[in-house]
Amino acid sequence: MSIHTIEWKDQQIKIIDQTKLPWELAYLWIKDVKELWKAIYQLKVRGAPALGIAGALGVVLGVQNFSAKDYASFKKELSRVVQYLSSSRPTAVNLFWALKRMSQCAQRNRGKSIDEIKESLKDEAFKIIKEDRVCNRLIAKNGSSLISDGDSILTHCNAGALATFDYGTALGIIYRARKEGKKIKVYADETRPLLQGARLTAWELLQEGIEATLICDSTAGEVMRERKINKVLVGADRVASNGDVANKIGTYTVSVLAKENDIPFYVACPFSTIDLSLSGGEDIPIEQRDPQEVASFLGKRIAPSGINVYNPAFDITPARYISAIITERDVHHPPYKKSLKGK
Amino acid sequence: MSIHTIEWKDQQIKIIDQTKLPWELAYLWIKDVKELWKAIYQLKVRGAPALGIAGALGVVLGVQNFSAKDYASFKKELSRVVQYLSSSRPTAVNLFWALKRMSQCAQRNRGKSIDEIKESLKDEAFKIIKEDRVCNRLIAKNGSSLISDGDSILTHCNAGALATFDYGTALGIIYRARKEGKKIKVYADETRPLLQGARLTAWELLQEGIEATLICDSTAGEVMRERKINKVLVGADRVASNGDVANKIGTYTVSVLAKENDIPFYVACPFSTIDLSLSGGEDIPIEQRDPQEVASFLGKRIAPSGINVYNPAFDITPARYISAIITERDVHHPPYKKSLKGK
Repeated sequence: MSIHTIEWKDQQIKIIDQTKLPWELAYLWIKDVKELWKAIYQLKVRGAPALGIAGALGVVLGVQNFSAKDYASFKKELSRVVQYLSSSRPTAVNLFWALKRMSQCAQRNRGKSIDEIKESLKDEAFKIIKEDRVCNRLIAKNGSSLISDGDSILTHCNAGALATFDYGTALGIIYRARKEGKKIKVYADETRPLLQGARLTAWELLQEGIEATLICDSTAGEVMRERKINKVLVGADRVASNGDVANKIGTYTVSVLAKENDIPFYVACPFSTIDLSLSGGEDIPIEQRDPQEVASFLGKRIAPSGINVYNPAFDITPARYISAIITERDVHHPPYKKSLKGK
Repeated sequence: MSIHTIEWKDQQIKIIDQTKLPWELAYLWIKDVKELWKAIYQLKVRGAPALGIAGALGVVLGVQNFSAKDYASFKKELSRVVQYLSSSRPTAVNLFWALKRMSQCAQRNRGKSIDEIKESLKDEAFKIIKEDRVCNRLIAKNGSSLISDGDSILTHCNAGALATFDYGTALGIIYRARKEGKKIKVYADETRPLLQGARLTAWELLQEGIEATLICDSTAGEVMRERKINKVLVGADRVASNGDVANKIGTYTVSVLAKENDIPFYVACPFSTIDLSLSGGEDIPIEQRDPQEVASFLGKRIAPSGINVYNPAFDITPARYISAIITERDVHHPPYKKSLKGK
């Protein structure tokens, strides 16, 4: 994938506006943190690793016009930016992880001039981007060992180039396996309500020339029962230390179906998505989103007015349904409490 | 529910055009079998019991202008109508069941004049409607014994007044339980791709004043995991003699999730939906529908062009996931091979 989901250019953050795909490959130039907050909230940029990069670049964007003369005032302004960006979306941990790294970077360089601190923050953000590139490719390499020639793989939501800097986690594994000469077919859940599967994963897979079939989320079970797929591969927004995974709503359902049909269910994510501070999935905050996302579609109301809507953006897949978690470090097998702490 | 999904009026079939709901309660007057075929294919009228009535009234509509002078030519023309209507949708057995009843009725009355045979066919169609009314209320009565005060029930697709003459199978049970003074909450899966849950079930439940919450199909698992529901109640399009059930795509998924979460999963349908000629679900023909239903939405393309789509309209829920099948005759418990043959 030669496109970049998010990058720093001309003192601005340049993102692919993912709400415009697949109709249009449009870029959005973000000039201040308010615009970035909105872009994150509206899922113009999304995917746990990409949100980490967005947080890091958001800090670079935020501090560039700080007028602070000393570290104490700088730190105060910085904290405000960090807190503000933290409030955009609660579930994907990479956002918080990156913001914390940026704060720690400022702290480490507090003896330097304000201009130098700003420069260090920019370097740190670029380092996070570079790490994401490397990390994605290591995940791909590790994960590809689980993929065989002829596999047919189900994926949910989008864990591809559009969810990272440029390559992908779950889809990165597929790209790598294909590069190794393995023939792979993919089934993509459309992923209601915001259709990341139908709009983004389908688009990405077509760009990459991978044979892909789109299904409704409710068809995943039948696709398994008919043995049209033999593996499931998804991304993650946050993983607890026991291996419980928060990912796009519907992931739990897919994991239960996979277990019932004896199909391996793999999660791929950078190690930064693993939140070792949490003992289990019940501690992961789940974002509740606007009922309109379900009750309306492309601006047109589809459900009668007056109906209640329950619209959690994520769900928790208990570790017992997960065959392995693939990170840049390793293919982690159960029990995750041990394997995720490994190194 | 004081509305009728389908009825005979002024020598025509009057249906609620369900593709217009919830935006508009519009009626469609059908004057010939070609229009009826199209209305069935396009799901303007849908739901297994309603399709049975559509088949019966379709025969009445078809024969009314027959010019046949003798039974042999009448029968030939009748067979053509029956065969034509049979080709509209393959899965719901009630359509074939009703068409067969109509053919048998003609056969029984073959000694009479052509006008008398036409009259007998009309009587038979009205009898089928009357039976559906009675049957729905008996299903409701039988099923309501399984419902407790305070239950929160998940349903998929629409098995209500809109899927029958006027009351419903799965939703009929809820209406009856409520009438008995039980407080019931309902969660409705939106039911992609054609959104019968979001458009029809949500509308019906609001009309009936029942507390209802709409969810994406992919949220059903999380709703169970969080114990927001304690029972599942769905309809059926065809049931094999071993209790395997064909119902709207996604039903199998819900049944697996229910089993995994120890939640009872009930199917409600008239006994005419049970096809004792089939030994198992693998013998039920599954309708494959237009990829556009998934790739487009309200006329707007949502997936990139060039993507494959797999769009089965139904799936098979194996009998082992079904806690009971509720018909007008009984609450049938496993083993179904025995209990469905009971009387």
